[in-house]
Amino acid sequence: MSIQPRLKGVFSPVLTPFNADHSPDPDRFARHCRWLIDQDVGLAVFGTNSEANSLSVGEKRALLEALVASGIPPGRLMPGTGACALPDAVELTRAAVAAGCGGVLMLPPFYYKGVSDEGLYRAFASVIDQVADVRLRVYLYHIPPVSNVPITFNLIERLLKRYPGTIAGIKDSSGDWPNTRGMLERFQPQGFDVFAGSESFLLANMRGGGAGCITATGNVNPGPIVKLFKEWTLADADAQQAALDTTRAAFARYPMIPAMKAAIAWKSGRADWGTVRPPLVELDDDQRAGLRQALDAAGFVLPNAGALA
Amino acid sequence: MSIQPRLKGVFSPVLTPFNADHSPDPDRFARHCRWLIDQDVGLAVFGTNSEANSLSVGEKRALLEALVASGIPPGRLMPGTGACALPDAVELTRAAVAAGCGGVLMLPPFYYKGVSDEGLYRAFASVIDQVADVRLRVYLYHIPPVSNVPITFNLIERLLKRYPGTIAGIKDSSGDWPNTRGMLERFQPQGFDVFAGSESFLLANMRGGGAGCITATGNVNPGPIVKLFKEWTLADADAQQAALDTTRAAFARYPMIPAMKAAIAWKSGRADWGTVRPPLVELDDDQRAGLRQALDAAGFVLPNAGALA
Repeated sequence: MSIQPRLKGVFSPVLTPFNADHSPDPDRFARHCRWLIDQDVGLAVFGTNSEANSLSVGEKRALLEALVASGIPPGRLMPGTGACALPDAVELTRAAVAAGCGGVLMLPPFYYKGVSDEGLYRAFASVIDQVADVRLRVYLYHIPPVSNVPITFNLIERLLKRYPGTIAGIKDSSGDWPNTRGMLERFQPQGFDVFAGSESFLLANMRGGGAGCITATGNVNPGPIVKLFKEWTLADADAQQAALDTTRAAFARYPMIPAMKAAIAWKSGRADWGTVRPPLVELDDDQRAGLRQALDAAGFVLPNAGALA
Repeated sequence: MSIQPRLKGVFSPVLTPFNADHSPDPDRFARHCRWLIDQDVGLAVFGTNSEANSLSVGEKRALLEALVASGIPPGRLMPGTGACALPDAVELTRAAVAAGCGGVLMLPPFYYKGVSDEGLYRAFASVIDQVADVRLRVYLYHIPPVSNVPITFNLIERLLKRYPGTIAGIKDSSGDWPNTRGMLERFQPQGFDVFAGSESFLLANMRGGGAGCITATGNVNPGPIVKLFKEWTLADADAQQAALDTTRAAFARYPMIPAMKAAIAWKSGRADWGTVRPPLVELDDDQRAGLRQALDAAGFVLPNAGALA
């Protein structure tokens, strides 16, 4: 059994392409993943921006199998495996470990609100104990604006103490830089890798000793984000960060998931890239026109977009 | 094909009994359901207080099959079938209709926050269209304190217009009486049955023309709640409501689900009734002692509790 190297760099919660009937398209999914890998972007498939919580466990397992069968290197995969129901989280996490994934990104159970750290500790511990595999690397997923169930420093500390090596890091999507900075100071020195939840904090996170970022816009702006990850010590790093912020702002004027899908549909010439699953809604004509204008103004390029068609 | 009578009265989100290993116990579940039916309480199995979102779809299907096989009349069942992923909601809703359930109680997809009414409309419509069965009766589940995804009047209006007969009513667990009153005024006259989300609003809801209540404490205080439903026009109705409020308050001093399970464990003499699934946590010794004291002070009785052991 080989120990995987620690995951670093830029990861993207990979957009899930749907057919017109809202079924996932495994071929387009694999092509998009290959396109990302070719640009040095790791694959945080089944994340928030993947509409993963709109997919059944069976759909996610089938997509994961299709990816691995297509030749995507599993060590570059960090699938989201958290779920409200622990049996679902166990099933997906087991499948990810069996497939050789470099890690998993784990939401807390997110239906019940105001739950205690003790309850969340038991939830994560239950999944880890049931999977019971030394290859498992868990990245906690802190995204209170969506999950409404935060992961506190106290919880991280308890989990790290009980499961050193298995608890590998966190994605901090709080949007709250002091929180990320606090995690960098307190936990990164213990080998707990802190990923910023978007490229907005990539430079700050690298300067603070972090591991990179896991960002939605990695789906559409991979090159410049990876460039900053590699060149964050160079003199033009702040200028690179500012350019990333400009591109991100063009997308963030609209609901991010439909906007990114609309951009890929536009640039690849494949209209069904725009499809989202309810409860999300596609951009309307005015929004699409506005997005194109904003992206053109930001000098946005989707390299080799034909590969995504 | 027989048309089911409209559901009325007191329903309870049935507590799900777990074994020590956190697997559901179908036999105890069926006995609890029988005990409730015998006291004229309908079965809103797989609700919030059932820890239903901590159960996999497969676990819920198996429990539903066990219930029906045990002889529980399916017309008295209103299982929760909403889910984040539409394929899960479709699968569970289909199973409920096939089993002859009187209705289903449907959460909106609850992971993504701030979604539009258009997106929620498409989500509910997609489930109804895929199930495609004239027997389907959908009760919408408005519980913004937990789901954080409200069901607006605008959404109800659109769904009622498109699916008259199928959209049968709502459980309003907002805790916001003006909201319930507004629904009673605007939608109850159209045959859209408004259930209060707890017995705290049972009397007010009946006076406003509503259909009853769906309430957690139906699990532990069924007799007096059903009595008020039957006698709400009598002179002592306000006094009955006040007594219900006192019993509820004793439970509400603690996290409700573990508290109700602790009370059943206490009165039935079966300790594993206390077990909850993470992320919930059982009451500790002090909490259990405090609960017993509060329930004794409120004159709490669990009739025929031995049947629950």
